[in-house]
Amino acid sequence: MVKRIDEVMPSIAFGGDYNPEQWDENVWLEDAKLMQEAGVNLVSVAIFSWSVLEREEGKFDFSWLDRVLDILHEHGVGVSLATATASPPAWLSKEYPEVLAVQENGVPYQIGSRQHYSPNSKRFRYAVKQLVKEMANRYKDHPALKMWHINNEYGCHLAECYSDESLSSFREWLKNRYQTIENLNQKWGTNFWSQRYNEWDEIQFPVNLPTFYNPSQKLDYKRFMNDAIFDLYKIEKEVLREITPDIPVFTNFMYEFKPLNYFGWAKEMDLVTWDSYPDPREGKPYRHAMHHDLMRSLKNGQPFYLMEQVTSHVNWRDINLTKKPGKMRLWSYSTVARGGDGVMYFQWRQGKAGAEKFHGAMVPHSNDSNSRVYQEVKQLGNELKQLDGLAGARGTAKVAIVFDWENWWAVEHEGKPHNRLSYLDQVYQYYRSFYEKNIAVDFVEPNGNLADYQFVVAPMLYMIRDGDENNFEQFVKNGGTLIVSFFSGIVDEQDHIHLGGYPAPLRSLLGLTVEEFAPMADDEKNTMVANGEKFIVDTWADIIKLEGAKAIATYKENWYQDKPAVTIHRYGQGSSIYVGTNPSDEYLDQLISGILQQLQVRAPLEAPKNVEIVERVANDKTFLFILNHNNDPVTVALEEGTVYQDCLQGKQVTQSITVQNTDVAILVC
Amino acid sequence: MVKRIDEVMPSIAFGGDYNPEQWDENVWLEDAKLMQEAGVNLVSVAIFSWSVLEREEGKFDFSWLDRVLDILHEHGVGVSLATATASPPAWLSKEYPEVLAVQENGVPYQIGSRQHYSPNSKRFRYAVKQLVKEMANRYKDHPALKMWHINNEYGCHLAECYSDESLSSFREWLKNRYQTIENLNQKWGTNFWSQRYNEWDEIQFPVNLPTFYNPSQKLDYKRFMNDAIFDLYKIEKEVLREITPDIPVFTNFMYEFKPLNYFGWAKEMDLVTWDSYPDPREGKPYRHAMHHDLMRSLKNGQPFYLMEQVTSHVNWRDINLTKKPGKMRLWSYSTVARGGDGVMYFQWRQGKAGAEKFHGAMVPHSNDSNSRVYQEVKQLGNELKQLDGLAGARGTAKVAIVFDWENWWAVEHEGKPHNRLSYLDQVYQYYRSFYEKNIAVDFVEPNGNLADYQFVVAPMLYMIRDGDENNFEQFVKNGGTLIVSFFSGIVDEQDHIHLGGYPAPLRSLLGLTVEEFAPMADDEKNTMVANGEKFIVDTWADIIKLEGAKAIATYKENWYQDKPAVTIHRYGQGSSIYVGTNPSDEYLDQLISGILQQLQVRAPLEAPKNVEIVERVANDKTFLFILNHNNDPVTVALEEGTVYQDCLQGKQVTQSITVQNTDVAILVC
Amino acid sequence: MVKRIDEVMPSIAFGGDYNPEQWDENVWLEDAKLMQEAGVNLVSVAIFSWSVLEREEGKFDFSWLDRVLDILHEHGVGVSLATATASPPAWLSKEYPEVLAVQENGVPYQIGSRQHYSPNSKRFRYAVKQLVKEMANRYKDHPALKMWHINNEYGCHLAECYSDESLSSFREWLKNRYQTIENLNQKWGTNFWSQRYNEWDEIQFPVNLPTFYNPSQKLDYKRFMNDAIFDLYKIEKEVLREITPDIPVFTNFMYEFKPLNYFGWAKEMDLVTWDSYPDPREGKPYRHAMHHDLMRSLKNGQPFYLMEQVTSHVNWRDINLTKKPGKMRLWSYSTVARGGDGVMYFQWRQGKAGAEKFHGAMVPHSNDSNSRVYQEVKQLGNELKQLDGLAGARGTAKVAIVFDWENWWAVEHEGKPHNRLSYLDQVYQYYRSFYEKNIAVDFVEPNGNLADYQFVVAPMLYMIRDGDENNFEQFVKNGGTLIVSFFSGIVDEQDHIHLGGYPAPLRSLLGLTVEEFAPMADDEKNTMVANGEKFIVDTWADIIKLEGAKAIATYKENWYQDKPAVTIHRYGQGSSIYVGTNPSDEYLDQLISGILQQLQVRAPLEAPKNVEIVERVANDKTFLFILNHNNDPVTVALEEGTVYQDCLQGKQVTQSITVQNTDVAILVC
Repeated sequence: MVKRIDEVMPSIAFGGDYNPEQWDENVWLEDAKLMQEAGVNLVSVAIFSWSVLEREEGKFDFSWLDRVLDILHEHGVGVSLATATASPPAWLSKEYPEVLAVQENGVPYQIGSRQHYSPNSKRFRYAVKQLVKEMANRYKDHPALKMWHINNEYGCHLAECYSDESLSSFREWLKNRYQTIENLNQKWGTNFWSQRYNEWDEIQFPVNLPTFYNPSQKLDYKRFMNDAIFDLYKIEKEVLREITPDIPVFTNFMYEFKPLNYFGWAKEMDLVTWDSYPDPREGKPYRHAMHHDLMRSLKNGQPFYLMEQVTSHVNWRDINLTKKPGKMRLWSYSTVARGGDGVMYFQWRQGKAGAEKFHGAMVPHSNDSNSRVYQEVKQLGNELKQLDGLAGARGTAKVAIVFDWENWWAVEHEGKPHNRLSYLDQVYQYYRSFYEKNIAVDFVEPNGNLADYQFVVAPMLYMIRDGDENNFEQFVKNGGTLIVSFFSGIVDEQDHIHLGGYPAPLRSLLGLTVEEFAPMADDEKNTMVANGEKFIVDTWADIIKLEGAKAIATYKENWYQDKPAVTIHRYGQGSSIYVGTNPSDEYLDQLISGILQQLQVRAPLEAPKNVEIVERVANDKTFLFILNHNNDPVTVALEEGTVYQDCLQGKQVTQSITVQNTDVAILVC
Repeated sequence: MVKRIDEVMPSIAFGGDYNPEQWDENVWLEDAKLMQEAGVNLVSVAIFSWSVLEREEGKFDFSWLDRVLDILHEHGVGVSLATATASPPAWLSKEYPEVLAVQENGVPYQIGSRQHYSPNSKRFRYAVKQLVKEMANRYKDHPALKMWHINNEYGCHLAECYSDESLSSFREWLKNRYQTIENLNQKWGTNFWSQRYNEWDEIQFPVNLPTFYNPSQKLDYKRFMNDAIFDLYKIEKEVLREITPDIPVFTNFMYEFKPLNYFGWAKEMDLVTWDSYPDPREGKPYRHAMHHDLMRSLKNGQPFYLMEQVTSHVNWRDINLTKKPGKMRLWSYSTVARGGDGVMYFQWRQGKAGAEKFHGAMVPHSNDSNSRVYQEVKQLGNELKQLDGLAGARGTAKVAIVFDWENWWAVEHEGKPHNRLSYLDQVYQYYRSFYEKNIAVDFVEPNGNLADYQFVVAPMLYMIRDGDENNFEQFVKNGGTLIVSFFSGIVDEQDHIHLGGYPAPLRSLLGLTVEEFAPMADDEKNTMVANGEKFIVDTWADIIKLEGAKAIATYKENWYQDKPAVTIHRYGQGSSIYVGTNPSDEYLDQLISGILQQLQVRAPLEAPKNVEIVERVANDKTFLFILNHNNDPVTVALEEGTVYQDCLQGKQVTQSITVQNTDVAILVC
Repeated sequence: MVKRIDEVMPSIAFGGDYNPEQWDENVWLEDAKLMQEAGVNLVSVAIFSWSVLEREEGKFDFSWLDRVLDILHEHGVGVSLATATASPPAWLSKEYPEVLAVQENGVPYQIGSRQHYSPNSKRFRYAVKQLVKEMANRYKDHPALKMWHINNEYGCHLAECYSDESLSSFREWLKNRYQTIENLNQKWGTNFWSQRYNEWDEIQFPVNLPTFYNPSQKLDYKRFMNDAIFDLYKIEKEVLREITPDIPVFTNFMYEFKPLNYFGWAKEMDLVTWDSYPDPREGKPYRHAMHHDLMRSLKNGQPFYLMEQVTSHVNWRDINLTKKPGKMRLWSYSTVARGGDGVMYFQWRQGKAGAEKFHGAMVPHSNDSNSRVYQEVKQLGNELKQLDGLAGARGTAKVAIVFDWENWWAVEHEGKPHNRLSYLDQVYQYYRSFYEKNIAVDFVEPNGNLADYQFVVAPMLYMIRDGDENNFEQFVKNGGTLIVSFFSGIVDEQDHIHLGGYPAPLRSLLGLTVEEFAPMADDEKNTMVANGEKFIVDTWADIIKLEGAKAIATYKENWYQDKPAVTIHRYGQGSSIYVGTNPSDEYLDQLISGILQQLQVRAPLEAPKNVEIVERVANDKTFLFILNHNNDPVTVALEEGTVYQDCLQGKQVTQSITVQNTDVAILVC
């Protein structure tokens, strides 16, 4: 049976991507020694090594990798071994051009960058399987092997393919989903614009169209591509499970990544890992914090690994600012606080050639161990060793935000009343309010288990599948508080309108109907009055007719003035609140604070602005993270009477603690 | 012989697109009853029904459409029956891929949206002919059939095709036009850039070029595509005329639609119809008003139908604002005032699936007959019934603006002195001035009959075909007043320079020559002095040498200061005015007011700002429309001593009338 | 042996492109007479005449060109005869489609514009050779023939081709460069991202990639295309040299033209010529002045020809402003002052058809010899005749700026710390400072001869090839002053990092290392303190560690405050200065003035602002150009005691001279 992650890595993992094949062999020993010094206990190896492992079809050369793994193991560095399938070698696409992914215009992608394969290519799948089998058999008993890193950042550059083989697969996928062409016609609404199909092979990709696509078809194409890439992952997993049944497997996820439904993927992963690259311009990266929380939520709160971050600056933005001194450490602790049991970098040693040579690394081009960058790495690596018992500890959120990838796909398709709505921005808006109050938040799917939460928010949940409404109704009936925001409950899983007055499936729960949408122009605003105070709203106004709910905010201007903007509805033991517009942060803060107060949900500690407080609970103790994002020291009052152990300073604290600018305190009690 | 429109529909037509095939049959009866209630007397049926009418090649199923037409007829609703050719079915492009239009890069468009056919495909033309024949034979005697709606919004998404078959057709078209390749070489000026052709099949499309195209070739390509699409229309018309010689036929035109020369098309239509979608942001949509006037002018003043508008908001803009209460009605009356004998919507019932499900409709998703939207529809539909004798009434403009599609194509081609000139904007600029003064305007082609007008404006008439100058000369000689604006008279119909000093063909009429063009940068302005007053000018300055004309405005700055900016030339009994720059609205208002005063051309009534006054004259009476676009009531003085009948209020008024905010009065005298 | 240019054209050449094939033969005589009147002594003929010279494959018709050359010769107008290969005829691409260049998406370019050929097409090269042979044999003894104008503006629209034949050529080129595939793998760093190649024919173009390209591969593709186009030039040159060994040959270069390494090309040209089209918006076009200096430097100071400029306005910008009266003459003299021995225009007579009909010309559409444009041409043409002995005179710069096309290519590739850096802008920044001080500047390659200079500036010299550093070291050791600016010395000629601390090859020369790059966001600035004064800096900050150098400016803000921003290092007899940021013009002016003063490098004369002073030295005399770019007259003090001859006024001047607004004085002493 597969081992638990904290069996494999009992303490916080620290290290990075390691690409020894880009360096002369004489550098490898130096690397291993530096790793030791820097506190590195895990490195990811072989991610882009296919072309040097399988030199020609079926001709494998593992000798160099054997030596690398041996050296690492001798220096106490574990290996997260990649299956090396992330980028296929030149000989493969030369010999079998059908492995190449194809662009919308029919032109194949080419070798010369990375990830140019079609996920639907049978020949590619076959080649992957062969390579993974060889890798697994070769290293199944190597003592350095801690876990399997499958492929890399699936779909990061290429999550759509328009090859002939993909078209066949798409038609096959549709046949499986709909069984009959008549059923597909109905589910796609093909009587619109004369789009009826008589046969499966009349169906084309939703591209190269004179104008708007069929939204049901487009949604299914997105589902299909998610499934195709997921199949590719599962093919590798299956091979690995068979040969190394006890070794955990995973792939690495990404930030704000829309094409893949990570909730579904996580079910097939032993560990969630992801790559986080906040832009230093952001200052205090609450959006990345949200993704830590989302990643932790994908497997019901199981800690995740941060598989990649950068020490200094990346090279793929337009302008790549560097992290100021201390920021990398501070943000790493924010990761750990939110459930990160691994802090890893891309990459160990900065490359001297290739597209990423200006991407920061743990060891810079100068190879100077006195460099600021390396010194910060070393400090963090050695500090993390002191956090005994943290690995495996969990959060304890009472608040959940509903998140749904398919809703993300559907709500951002073209042809909407307002076509600049961003699903993530709507979610961020609510998340921000909790984040700034240091209220822990989990993420759940619409049909997820809500029983552990007191307060649930569903921002812009445009798509409600059959039965999802029952989950919300049950939650509120049982005493929960629910916020639903505008443009929710509009369509079913085919992106067809729920007829019968918006938002039909939520009408009785919310106690209202939305008679019309009144989108606002970019420069347009309105004012809303709540509790006698005025708040700016923009983007959207629902024209609401109350059916049991009561208005708690009303519009002040335009032809719908005095009509409800925000409503509340008592339902069973709980309440459902509907926010029919896009209010200012001030209003959301007020609304959410009121609810939290009523529900007696509180932050772990009261703290000054820009101080992040997070709790992780282990079996026998609680870790309290105090992160100071300010440019000045802050003093935080502690719980009266409690004696805390300051893990990093190695001393006891009571009453209050002062945390320096850009510094962190980790207290145990 | 074909019936007159007012024979077929003796009162204002009211209704919309009706797509019953998207709904269960049990909704149809409900639809018909609601239509009755709402005052609907005409609906457009079967526009996108090809795939449900011809299920497979040659296998037709008209049964459902039979039932729809019967139900409609039973409820007193007439049918504008579409030929269903607007979007071909999947089986057609699967079986005959050559029907697909092709993009510039050689990639065919695909099924999955609409209008993916190549207008030049012989196979497509054949399929169209078969379908139309079937339709016409099936319904030729159905009592609901009022008129034929051919295809739909020709070219709206796809007015260029680059298929091999289109290339052959283009060469054929050129052979017909030029007879010999030597003639083509001369007419295209192919000695420039070594572009000579020896044979017809050396000619390519004017795309996929390393740099600037040959403007004569590009212009001919535009002519060719207009003709190709027009042929498609005429094929259908011919079939229909043969089978139903008495039923009027037409297709629906669009707003600001450049690819098709509607003046030419209108000659083959029994009724001009068009689709108007003003953005509610515009407030008072004078540009749409201009297109009403243009549409009315296409058939020499014959009333047109507004074939599509939306009740609330569309879904194809970036952000789709909704029309505020009353606006839809107000703008509908503006249509009627300007010659609209039909007020129709896209669409009757809001769709539940497909790309247009968020496009507003007469009956919203909620199916709620108390909804604001449906109530406004019902009010308007029932009001329009009261306007006895209006259908067929005509305008009586004394002013005409010259409009020419081929000039539009040529003047906006690349490689000009100033490449951001918009022909429409130049036309709008003059139109606006008349519109705000409530002076009726017709549109004419450069070789059109000018005898009925006192005042003609030709904005930026870059292309003057041989002989067009005589038309203008005759008009002025006979006492007319003509304004010509800058960059007029520069090229012939091949887009070759009229040599001999700009604007060579108009030099004697205008009494001047333009020695140089001095375009202005985006942020550049100049000042012009006229009658001692200063006016801002921008965009362009002609350097004018007088040859008989006299300056009525001169530049104040730059190296051409004191040179003429605007000139007047007495010619025969009339005057020709040349505006050699782009003046501010203030100047144009002053210039035009002065001329109108001199010519004693007046608005039907004096009115406050933002009040639209329009007159339509029937055989025995005059309808006077007073439309209040303001947010406050206005009072308009009426003609002393006249007793008017207020059609909507059903009472008599004299002296003055007060019209509410966003309201309209229709007086008959 | 080939004649020297000043043998062929002993005085300043004046004329333009002449395209008689676009006009009826009866215009030709009129042209020749007007040319005579205007002082024209040279015209470029037949640039786009292929399709009228070779009517069909192998069927040549030179009769019309014979007559043209005869007429020109009879009127004393010499001919720069084009080889007519700039744009192939339609019959060629119809018969041999493989001559067509291909776009990234695989779609071939087409006939209908110009320059649609693939430089790698063997068939095209063959056709070119045949045509040039015919031309050369036909006209080798014609007395009008002064020089050969090969092709035209190579690569101006199309400097990349993705045809199959180009791919084969690319692979062949790589094989020649790298000999073994293993060597290529190492030089391209293909162990990165699994890009190893086993065979040459696995290599693809660096396009159609899912994400970032391999920068070494991209750089080689740019080198390959430069070489391919250069080969095309050399094929023509070889033919011409054989048939007319004494006639100079060249092609015409362009402004800011990145794809071709003109330093390399110039070695194969007998005369550097280029086409300069400053935008009149610029006012005083110092960037074009820089390119005059660069063009003069390409052949070690040998005078160049301005082969094309426009009299009034071009037609290919968005908005094409016209040159105000006098500007064309003033800018022409600036050209002459900076080494221009020819002042030519595109074109003689303004075309009546085709893509360039709105491009200004020496004779406008009106054919009016009283027009401002023609009058200015005539004045200039006749003035230039008075400048005896000027042709062949040289400049005498003591300052050089390093310029390198391959560095330009490499530093602007993607994936950098800051991806909006413009190499040209960095060069302009330094050039501007010298230009405004009227300090003459030459341009040199990194491995060029620096011995003649006292002061050398190397802006953003990202790529340092092996050994280039020695050239700089030697220069400074010998007493030179060198400025190097940020992001220099980073990579080798493969675009691989010079390991060992930035900028490794320059570390000892500069006496420092750059530990980190800190790019700045767009809206970000910092302040730098130098000599107690504050200066704004932006874009970039190097984090510098001194290793012998001393700081002469330090940062005032951000985490790197007080660290060095600009440093100086005594090295041998000279000094090297490093500018580790992007400082304001004020700072650069101060820094450069200080150095110039120390080195006693001075302008020819002290002059007011916006007065351009340039010296050219002939065998026996010195020409002093005083160009007044102001809108008011200026008075310039002359050297005490010297008596100057004013060439244009034909009188002597001493003490001082007053030059009118937009006027020029040329003094000889």
